[in-house]
Amino acid sequence: MNSFGKLFRISIYGESHGESVGIVMDGCPAGIPLKTSDFEAELARRKSGAKGTTPRQEPDIPRIMSGVFNELTTGAPVMVQFDNTNTRSRDYSLLKDIPRPGHADFTGQQKFGGYQDYRGGGHFSGRLTLGLVAAGVVARKIIAPAKVESAILEVGGSTQIESALDNAIEIQDSIGGIIECRISEVPVGLGEPFFDSLEAVMSHMVFSIPAIKGIEFGSGFEAARMKGSEHNDNIIDSQGNTETNHAGGINGGISNGNEIIFRVAVKPTSSTHQAQRTMNMQSGKMEELSIEGRHDTCIALRVPAVLEAAAAIVMADFMLQAQQTGRIFKHK
Amino acid sequence: MNSFGKLFRISIYGESHGESVGIVMDGCPAGIPLKTSDFEAELARRKSGAKGTTPRQEPDIPRIMSGVFNELTTGAPVMVQFDNTNTRSRDYSLLKDIPRPGHADFTGQQKFGGYQDYRGGGHFSGRLTLGLVAAGVVARKIIAPAKVESAILEVGGSTQIESALDNAIEIQDSIGGIIECRISEVPVGLGEPFFDSLEAVMSHMVFSIPAIKGIEFGSGFEAARMKGSEHNDNIIDSQGNTETNHAGGINGGISNGNEIIFRVAVKPTSSTHQAQRTMNMQSGKMEELSIEGRHDTCIALRVPAVLEAAAAIVMADFMLQAQQTGRIFKHK
Amino acid sequence: MNSFGKLFRISIYGESHGESVGIVMDGCPAGIPLKTSDFEAELARRKSGAKGTTPRQEPDIPRIMSGVFNELTTGAPVMVQFDNTNTRSRDYSLLKDIPRPGHADFTGQQKFGGYQDYRGGGHFSGRLTLGLVAAGVVARKIIAPAKVESAILEVGGSTQIESALDNAIEIQDSIGGIIECRISEVPVGLGEPFFDSLEAVMSHMVFSIPAIKGIEFGSGFEAARMKGSEHNDNIIDSQGNTETNHAGGINGGISNGNEIIFRVAVKPTSSTHQAQRTMNMQSGKMEELSIEGRHDTCIALRVPAVLEAAAAIVMADFMLQAQQTGRIFKHK
Amino acid sequence: MNSFGKLFRISIYGESHGESVGIVMDGCPAGIPLKTSDFEAELARRKSGAKGTTPRQEPDIPRIMSGVFNELTTGAPVMVQFDNTNTRSRDYSLLKDIPRPGHADFTGQQKFGGYQDYRGGGHFSGRLTLGLVAAGVVARKIIAPAKVESAILEVGGSTQIESALDNAIEIQDSIGGIIECRISEVPVGLGEPFFDSLEAVMSHMVFSIPAIKGIEFGSGFEAARMKGSEHNDNIIDSQGNTETNHAGGINGGISNGNEIIFRVAVKPTSSTHQAQRTMNMQSGKMEELSIEGRHDTCIALRVPAVLEAAAAIVMADFMLQAQQTGRIFKHK
Repeated sequence: MNSFGKLFRISIYGESHGESVGIVMDGCPAGIPLKTSDFEAELARRKSGAKGTTPRQEPDIPRIMSGVFNELTTGAPVMVQFDNTNTRSRDYSLLKDIPRPGHADFTGQQKFGGYQDYRGGGHFSGRLTLGLVAAGVVARKIIAPAKVESAILEVGGSTQIESALDNAIEIQDSIGGIIECRISEVPVGLGEPFFDSLEAVMSHMVFSIPAIKGIEFGSGFEAARMKGSEHNDNIIDSQGNTETNHAGGINGGISNGNEIIFRVAVKPTSSTHQAQRTMNMQSGKMEELSIEGRHDTCIALRVPAVLEAAAAIVMADFMLQAQQTGRIFKHK
Repeated sequence: MNSFGKLFRISIYGESHGESVGIVMDGCPAGIPLKTSDFEAELARRKSGAKGTTPRQEPDIPRIMSGVFNELTTGAPVMVQFDNTNTRSRDYSLLKDIPRPGHADFTGQQKFGGYQDYRGGGHFSGRLTLGLVAAGVVARKIIAPAKVESAILEVGGSTQIESALDNAIEIQDSIGGIIECRISEVPVGLGEPFFDSLEAVMSHMVFSIPAIKGIEFGSGFEAARMKGSEHNDNIIDSQGNTETNHAGGINGGISNGNEIIFRVAVKPTSSTHQAQRTMNMQSGKMEELSIEGRHDTCIALRVPAVLEAAAAIVMADFMLQAQQTGRIFKHK
Repeated sequence: MNSFGKLFRISIYGESHGESVGIVMDGCPAGIPLKTSDFEAELARRKSGAKGTTPRQEPDIPRIMSGVFNELTTGAPVMVQFDNTNTRSRDYSLLKDIPRPGHADFTGQQKFGGYQDYRGGGHFSGRLTLGLVAAGVVARKIIAPAKVESAILEVGGSTQIESALDNAIEIQDSIGGIIECRISEVPVGLGEPFFDSLEAVMSHMVFSIPAIKGIEFGSGFEAARMKGSEHNDNIIDSQGNTETNHAGGINGGISNGNEIIFRVAVKPTSSTHQAQRTMNMQSGKMEELSIEGRHDTCIALRVPAVLEAAAAIVMADFMLQAQQTGRIFKHK
Repeated sequence: MNSFGKLFRISIYGESHGESVGIVMDGCPAGIPLKTSDFEAELARRKSGAKGTTPRQEPDIPRIMSGVFNELTTGAPVMVQFDNTNTRSRDYSLLKDIPRPGHADFTGQQKFGGYQDYRGGGHFSGRLTLGLVAAGVVARKIIAPAKVESAILEVGGSTQIESALDNAIEIQDSIGGIIECRISEVPVGLGEPFFDSLEAVMSHMVFSIPAIKGIEFGSGFEAARMKGSEHNDNIIDSQGNTETNHAGGINGGISNGNEIIFRVAVKPTSSTHQAQRTMNMQSGKMEELSIEGRHDTCIALRVPAVLEAAAAIVMADFMLQAQQTGRIFKHK
């Protein structure tokens, strides 16, 4: 439920207002240089504070609790923990009765029978992605020289990001965005024909990131409107490089050596200052609700660091699997 | 690699031109009525023959090899096998040297070191989806009264399906399409907050279907262009029904009781009569290539039966997991 | 439920009196020479016919249904199927009401609600081990030059096997036995510290073989009666060879390069001509029951081929995992 | 590698001399009463201090870091952490060159390329079983009213435990022991026919406990010396109760409702004051070595709390699986 991966296997735990959140990375090869400061840059990218993100900030200090000795991984599970410090003792108990539209208040309540920790999103909180970012830092070291990068293509339907944010802040509503991720220097042969196709496993991981509602590889939905003669990528050398890259670097579920490209749709932050209507489960009456307090105008702004980490984690697992001879028998 | 699922677990095997293709369904509850004729309608929907699909037809006769006794499942693995009969002894060996653009010829060759069965797509063949359709028939029985339906929204960029097909046939090129899938009468509470979110597991399975290059839930990519106040679905009763369904029936990774809705993008069939360019790996020279023979003009036409089966399989696994008390402890 | 393994993953299916039994081997590396006749010798070792085994014989003809092309594995799942031919149409329905002591009649009935195929043991039948033997043949090729051998140490409490069998046949009762398995030329480093220790995974697989009720590694239960100074194996060279081998080739869950040694206890065949007492679930009265027909006097005689196969399957999976650089990071 | 279980899934991490050791329990149902003091009694049973155990003591204070809210589980992962406090800064670096007989020094060094944390056993340390004991406390709540109990049958080959310990202390050597575990009030129907038989999964978990070298169910190795007519347990009522319990409560891999009984062999503590010989990997010369310091004379004395926890964890997972209607389809 809270684990992912086959040979590089991660498990996350924690709640927004509990003691801590963190991650256990199992199957991490021994001998990878790793120290606390390695996490800083990526954690900073995920952090809030910039325009369009919440002004509430937590220090996000990673503590390596196991699996590292003399600043090198040992081969045992690497556990990275983040203490929760900025947990205001607000009263969240209203959420049990008055589920916020767009949030997991209603589904969490139903699934966990009212036992869920509802404070600040509890286990559903985006704060859990701190662990993903930490695992991504390790994964990037495993997959080097392959590299993962991403870019925000648009927010609020506009490629003019600055002005779209200004507008959203002015009208006190939240907006979504579209992010593109590219993985370069990928070896040929990662992924499997069906259930563990590169698209299948990547999308599985990517939809674990809160607020993502769509993913497309290469030309994606546009491919559905192309002719075969347009969409097929002509192969131009013996390494499998192609003239175009409509396939997004994947054929038959397997990496073909070109850049892996995919885009994700991030929905607008569910918390908005605008009034919404919902059912009060206690009274059985409809109520008007507007979410007070400090929240991200555009959560998509904070997704790139998490999305790249997610992609790196998937690639690390595939690469460790491929090291078993690329599934080809060595005749002895 | 070729298995999927946790409590309802399927494993597929076979090649296009081998002895047979088939599926093993493990974890199938005992006591489900099942006989060979139950598969007929769905297999017929998947079949070719209609306009825009290949005229080559195989009988696709399912044989239940285990797990059923007196026309009821026994609780042991249900194995369904399809003999391959229409396997022309054409010479496919050229594909080893001259990989077709858009196909898995190059990636399969690289991954499996030239040992792959390259005849007719081998293990990459869409023929493997016969097993998925068979498993979908069983899964539908498990999830009833929940229902899975789908519709082709457009092919070749056109909602006028008939004329889009006519045009593609005339210009001798292939086209893709977009399909929408809806799952109704879904219990609240299926799915998990992060790695096993309903979107995550569903997309994992759906990208196992060949030719799919994108998936979006609810408003999907359009959500990225909406305001939070527009996108959030107001909750209008104590069952969690919502006024709109931009979330596609899922909040926080968990079903909210509304219809689950998603759309997929199907790329144009990789085989096209149009000339393409590719590298001859033997000679090191570029060659022009056009794919002769009978193939689907629009493979998207045959996807609905497979897509619904895939969705039903995912839902069956989630429902079996939910039967363990919905993850809520019974105080004794 | 009916699958085992991580990178070399097997799934079994079938019933004693159904259409067929078989196995799907997933994760099998491409390029392994494999043809039907490769299975013959091991299948013959498993077969009945010798003194102390049932005179009922089936031909046990393996059919490779997928995953092999030009007598080499392709990297796709290898499916091997055995048709059931010698299935007498006896009436087995009494077993539903009158569970035989020592058999799975009662537990199967309870678990599967009466839907189980009770004919000839159904899915519980030892006939399912045909698939294990087939997978063992492939696994041996993967692990070579490592070798798996076993020997029957005793049957019916006697090391004089011939006379113990004669005696059991004369008194018309069944007997058990103890078998020792040795794996040689094992690389150092297979297995993990805790849950995937070599003992843990090996015992998991070995207890999947019907009738096995105990396993011990190295000195095993005798170790519990030794002093530390006696039990510890002195290391005598830089390859880790030890003077003695009380540890059975495993320290801290990981192979140490010496022979892996374990012994298993096989209970006496549950079917015996002697009278036993059991409850008639229909009438609620105790009944006397003696199992007519042809059965193995000592099923332990047929276990070695299956036990070696099981051991080879476990080693193959560990070796494929180890090929990912033995869990050590390559600095680039 | 460091995870176990299907629906109740645990992951352990940590090293003897690192920051902490701990466990993440995923799939824990919501609503189980749980507070820190619940762990005290079982942790105390595992603790050293009594005759025959090491006088070195650590406080072993459990901290619940996630998954509990208002002293009830939330359905999210429960993380329990134990800080390491009594970590003397001794010099352990000699172990890299001079592997101790019976320990994992050599295998750990080889598997992890010298990167392992070798201080005090590192990740191989018995201290990791603290997490198992914590998970066992939760598991017992899940399986109630089923109960797990164990007893030390013998140490050092003697049923006179007190005097056997006195003798071992006097001669300054270590000794092993045999422990019997019994699980009562077990529902019928837990376990699966082959790979997930109750014996298979239980042994997998039990061999994860350091120092265990053998396991037998019911009559175990003695069964191999019995006749079928002796070993078979006559069924005496409609609940499946049997006259005898040679099967240890399991037929065909599935619980039959009687007590589940198994015994394990615990080897003598590898650390002994007696002199042993081993290879100095640096100099290539044999050396004599005796392990100084405080260690357990008989580690078997501390195993019962861990063994019972392990058994409870396995049963909890099986029971959660069984709650999905016992694998029987409900006709709607």
